[in-house]
Amino acid sequence: MLTLDKIYKASHVLRKVIRKTDMIFAPKLSSDCEVYLKTENLQVTGSFKVRGASFMMSQLSDEEKAKGVIACSAGNHAQGVALAAASQGIKSLICLPDGAPISKVEATKSYGAEVCMVEGVYDDAYNKALQLQKELGCTFVHPFDDEDVIAGQGTIGLEILDQLPDVDAVVVPVGGGGLISGVAYAIKNLNPNVKIYGVQASGAPSMVQSVLDDKIERLQSVSTIADGIAVKEPGQHTFEYCRKYVDELVTVTDDEISAAILALIERQKLIAEGAGAAPVAAVMFGKIPVKGKKVVCLVSGGNIDVTILSRVIKRGLLMSGRTATLLIELIDKPGQLLGVSKIIAEQGGNVISIHHERANEGSDVNGCFLRITMETKDYAHIEAIRKALTDNGFKIV
Amino acid sequence: MLTLDKIYKASHVLRKVIRKTDMIFAPKLSSDCEVYLKTENLQVTGSFKVRGASFMMSQLSDEEKAKGVIACSAGNHAQGVALAAASQGIKSLICLPDGAPISKVEATKSYGAEVCMVEGVYDDAYNKALQLQKELGCTFVHPFDDEDVIAGQGTIGLEILDQLPDVDAVVVPVGGGGLISGVAYAIKNLNPNVKIYGVQASGAPSMVQSVLDDKIERLQSVSTIADGIAVKEPGQHTFEYCRKYVDELVTVTDDEISAAILALIERQKLIAEGAGAAPVAAVMFGKIPVKGKKVVCLVSGGNIDVTILSRVIKRGLLMSGRTATLLIELIDKPGQLLGVSKIIAEQGGNVISIHHERANEGSDVNGCFLRITMETKDYAHIEAIRKALTDNGFKIV
Repeated sequence: MLTLDKIYKASHVLRKVIRKTDMIFAPKLSSDCEVYLKTENLQVTGSFKVRGASFMMSQLSDEEKAKGVIACSAGNHAQGVALAAASQGIKSLICLPDGAPISKVEATKSYGAEVCMVEGVYDDAYNKALQLQKELGCTFVHPFDDEDVIAGQGTIGLEILDQLPDVDAVVVPVGGGGLISGVAYAIKNLNPNVKIYGVQASGAPSMVQSVLDDKIERLQSVSTIADGIAVKEPGQHTFEYCRKYVDELVTVTDDEISAAILALIERQKLIAEGAGAAPVAAVMFGKIPVKGKKVVCLVSGGNIDVTILSRVIKRGLLMSGRTATLLIELIDKPGQLLGVSKIIAEQGGNVISIHHERANEGSDVNGCFLRITMETKDYAHIEAIRKALTDNGFKIV
Repeated sequence: MLTLDKIYKASHVLRKVIRKTDMIFAPKLSSDCEVYLKTENLQVTGSFKVRGASFMMSQLSDEEKAKGVIACSAGNHAQGVALAAASQGIKSLICLPDGAPISKVEATKSYGAEVCMVEGVYDDAYNKALQLQKELGCTFVHPFDDEDVIAGQGTIGLEILDQLPDVDAVVVPVGGGGLISGVAYAIKNLNPNVKIYGVQASGAPSMVQSVLDDKIERLQSVSTIADGIAVKEPGQHTFEYCRKYVDELVTVTDDEISAAILALIERQKLIAEGAGAAPVAAVMFGKIPVKGKKVVCLVSGGNIDVTILSRVIKRGLLMSGRTATLLIELIDKPGQLLGVSKIIAEQGGNVISIHHERANEGSDVNGCFLRITMETKDYAHIEAIRKALTDNGFKIV
């Protein structure tokens, strides 16, 4: 049974392992409301998961501790369990699907866990973990549907009320629902006036769907850049807590999440993973009624693969007019490249790649194409460059 | 005259404007020593500059305040002065060189400053600011060579001693020297056992050179991605404080700074600008003798242009084997592209761009080249893909 008592106890137990992460006022993220960020991306292991895992393990008997723990995860839960176990001298074994990013596998090992790579996807690794758990007699650490795990995550709720006593609303990402269950339970039991909003990715709305249908629904497939909340089915406990304590559940698209990731980088100097940026996306894109309110966005984690980060930034630059690609049709005679280069330089465009194609289909037999990618200042700058080129007789396709 | 008293006073005055930024333990940045980050990149305006500017302005007379302030900067100082002035109800005018990034100009305006764009480079904007200062009778806010400004930056030194009383060494980026002068003064006067190390970019080593030559030297030119510390000449005050209180000055290259920026993103979820990452680079690349010590790296700011950030990440990915470009020579017959695609897919490479070139000089008349860029896992993965291609008869150039 979840109780406030248990969450307070967790808070005490966790003190040696976790950081009380900073609460940061972020006025540049919205002009409609006062946004604060609870920065669990700056938590040890880069996400809140270490809280629940640590408290759950602290409640095991000595005999259970001696047998070790097992978990299945391709991401934050793996690192959380690994560090939590190591800090209490418990052996941990983590099953990962073999497609998991090298960086996450290495991070998990670096915290001292033994890693078991399982062929297939998450569900295969999960089944392998259950099988190994029976064989080895160790304890399975569920990523969300466990009341001790939920109590551990609930400590964030206590910290929020301590750091911002007059908070009006808290916005929390929702995957399996462990984080929001703990946070909502703690906050609603201490101050029922605080609104709790849950945010899911529109490509993985399992809790939204379940609450709507008033029963646990399993999605056939999930697809989102927010891998931390790409969960097919809520837990039984978490479903009940969400129904009881969460005021509203909303969804955000991958494009909205990407824009929020970029906004956090540019305006707050923080790296958030997709799940961590989802609450900021919900506020930025007006998904929840928080006008004029003091709103805490729970930035749950920052473990985003740099390759994906690079793509998000690239897309963000393109969408804000800070890079542009022009395809220019040239007459195939000497000096044409010089002419184009001169105009772009005069206009202050910074060429980063150039590609010259001759005799393509559809162009004049003497024609050729120049594909130029430039760093630009904004859309007006791109327009100025386009105009200067066409004014000088170049044809932009 | 700089005194501890003045720094304590600054600390009190600043309380309403600034954040006491978090000190974050960062064990993954070095296995040689205990690294802590003083996160001034999370300061309001994204850098420490607001501290010095705020305290300096608080010391102006009512008459001076009524006449307003003027400053010249293309970066953090502009935003610091703008916010500091606004928070004290003082008018501010900032001269910026017209090449300044749009994002910084907009940020400066958003804090309520009037902006004057000056044709040319920093020195032109500086001269324009001095001229306007005389015409308007307002107060010039120097970016570093002013004892009140230095006292304001010194408040970081007090916070470091408060947050980590048993610190052994503090590593500080050095441009004009205002930040390190204040921090070193505060710390050495309270605990002379703490070592203070200064870090400059190897493309802008003005303080290093000046201290070496025992007189203020002016560099002809500076070139570094760390624009926040690209300063041609130290100040008179700051030169004296550096000589007296700084234990050692070292330099780091742009590649080292880039690696530190990427490490801060991946391991600490923090965005640092070049100057802010320089102390981390110095520790990561063994530039300072801190083995086994408790070391604070002062991450001075996070205002890096996203375009540059994108380049740094791209370079980092390349250097760690997480993207690779292969140039493959093909026989010009149908099915070749299919063959290559199949092998790369089987090996788990993720193609992000492809470029097919026919009839280049130097290749067989029937030959052509395929330039493929892929996302890869690491160097071993790249090697496996290369091997699979050559084993199947493809020639990698």
